[in-house]
Amino acid sequence: MEDVRIEWKALQEFTAKVFEGLGMPPQDAAKEAEVLVWANLRGVDSHGVQRIEEYAKRVDAGIMNPQPHIQVLKETPATILIEADRAFGPVVTTFAMEKVIDKARKVGIGWGLIRNTTHQGAMAYYTQMAAARGMAGIAVVCSPPNMAPPGARAAGVHNSPIAIAVPGKNYKFLSLDMATSVAAGGKLHVAIDKGTSIPPDWALDKDGRPTTDPKKAVFLQPAAGYKGYGLALMFECLSSLMVGNPLITSTLLNQNPVAPGTQNSFVGAIHIGNFTDIEQYKENVDRLVTALKGLPKIEGVSEIFVPGEPEERVYEDRIKNGIPLPIGTVEKLRKAAERFKLKLPPGL
Amino acid sequence: MEDVRIEWKALQEFTAKVFEGLGMPPQDAAKEAEVLVWANLRGVDSHGVQRIEEYAKRVDAGIMNPQPHIQVLKETPATILIEADRAFGPVVTTFAMEKVIDKARKVGIGWGLIRNTTHQGAMAYYTQMAAARGMAGIAVVCSPPNMAPPGARAAGVHNSPIAIAVPGKNYKFLSLDMATSVAAGGKLHVAIDKGTSIPPDWALDKDGRPTTDPKKAVFLQPAAGYKGYGLALMFECLSSLMVGNPLITSTLLNQNPVAPGTQNSFVGAIHIGNFTDIEQYKENVDRLVTALKGLPKIEGVSEIFVPGEPEERVYEDRIKNGIPLPIGTVEKLRKAAERFKLKLPPGL
Repeated sequence: MEDVRIEWKALQEFTAKVFEGLGMPPQDAAKEAEVLVWANLRGVDSHGVQRIEEYAKRVDAGIMNPQPHIQVLKETPATILIEADRAFGPVVTTFAMEKVIDKARKVGIGWGLIRNTTHQGAMAYYTQMAAARGMAGIAVVCSPPNMAPPGARAAGVHNSPIAIAVPGKNYKFLSLDMATSVAAGGKLHVAIDKGTSIPPDWALDKDGRPTTDPKKAVFLQPAAGYKGYGLALMFECLSSLMVGNPLITSTLLNQNPVAPGTQNSFVGAIHIGNFTDIEQYKENVDRLVTALKGLPKIEGVSEIFVPGEPEERVYEDRIKNGIPLPIGTVEKLRKAAERFKLKLPPGL
Repeated sequence: MEDVRIEWKALQEFTAKVFEGLGMPPQDAAKEAEVLVWANLRGVDSHGVQRIEEYAKRVDAGIMNPQPHIQVLKETPATILIEADRAFGPVVTTFAMEKVIDKARKVGIGWGLIRNTTHQGAMAYYTQMAAARGMAGIAVVCSPPNMAPPGARAAGVHNSPIAIAVPGKNYKFLSLDMATSVAAGGKLHVAIDKGTSIPPDWALDKDGRPTTDPKKAVFLQPAAGYKGYGLALMFECLSSLMVGNPLITSTLLNQNPVAPGTQNSFVGAIHIGNFTDIEQYKENVDRLVTALKGLPKIEGVSEIFVPGEPEERVYEDRIKNGIPLPIGTVEKLRKAAERFKLKLPPGL
């Protein structure tokens, strides 16, 4: 069955209504919907509206909090420490990012730690908030373990993603958003759904052996072995340990059991204008892209890409032509519409 | 021929004298020697005293500046921008790190940009300066391109390393220091010297094909493909572009030719005590190590390592039993001794 194309704005409005139905204040529901649909617009469907069903279950189970009491625990001119009270990631993280952008404007850098958040969604969203304001943005999130350190036949770290974005001039952004595993967890689910095999470097089976059968995949493999593992581990130290909420240790040693879905995160903004001329910076980003795209190519390669470019192309298509939704996602939206007595977006 | 073991302190004093001979003030020479010998002590011999000969040539050629006019161009409570005037990396970077540590103590984070430095040496040194003061340390350095973006048969980015360190309690540090390429460039030289082949994912030949012959290797391959490439590219944006000294673009587009050996760098310190209890943090690092080392292992694997641990073991051996120097390095030291009329360390 062919995917249905849905106009993004209608999808976003519908999604916001679902979150209102789940008990979120309208402004928060709108933000959550915006971040999810933004992921769909960029082709990152794993972090898009297909999450609605799972989020609803987590709200019902008391794991995600639609009405959190978000608290600023500590603040300096350059830093902020926030207790998220199990808020939806986008709600607390956009709040944190606004704060660190303000700080960066005043003292050159702003650094925010977020404790006890839940699913952060597409991390690139937050870093592009900074880039849109003439800043470099950084964001990292950590969760309980799902990735095996080299030599282990057990999960020991999370495949924590890092996102970094900077602004260009004609070229809107350079925007990296990468997991520290070879492949994101969502790709395993896609392979299972499609009945296809996976490359042997993606995951390990229960005995720690590389597997090409996604159904036997139990632990993700780190990107570049020790390097992906090392980054993931240091990210846990810079986020979870920094906020006194160690997710990996608590899980592995069975101390202070972690509520399912708990995450910790940090976000940073660096004010480019504090260090150099911002217009020149943006031109330099454009020139860097031009230089890279002009490199001699390996035979058979049609183009050299820069971070965020493939997603930006999908964005340009989907903003005009709508977001294609597979039947599984459509079913999830129909269920949500039924539950909250909502009208589905046109086309569904 | 077997390697000669040299007592580290004698080697460091000798090395400092060489740098004094090259025109450095005694304090700077001592710092440079300390950072080089520290790398040797940790087994990172590629960044150790074997660099002396190359550095001497670069001083003679006016590329590295033994008497730089280091200038603070801009400073806020949280940031600092430093013109290095082609200083030796360790001289300007230890200066920068002290500054950002001070700032972090006051406002929670310090962020330093260094423009126009030269070879930074082992980046872990700077991050451990922060960790020794109860902080998380971050350091990145960028250089002209030596690594091929996916699809290119030319260098487009540098295999810029990132180092991150945090303090533990009984377990001294977690200390990551990784290049964004699969293998560091120095490993190719070692393979050439030994006449061995290299794995096919390390480097490309002039046509952009993977090669197992280190003599045919022209471009490094990024770690985990797009991920290593993406990180390296964003690091250039966070350092070189941030200080208005774009190394990649200038090299690729032949604009504003880059003086050989030029690097730009950033260093950061995050004051752990600003966010959480520092003693508890250190205990949490210890617990994290314990948890990871206790994971079930793949058959045949004897131990799971954490970042910095292999280097720390070498350190413990070499601090007691001396630093083994291969004959090639000994020759370089002899030449330096001759040039500057110095007594070689005992054993040489």
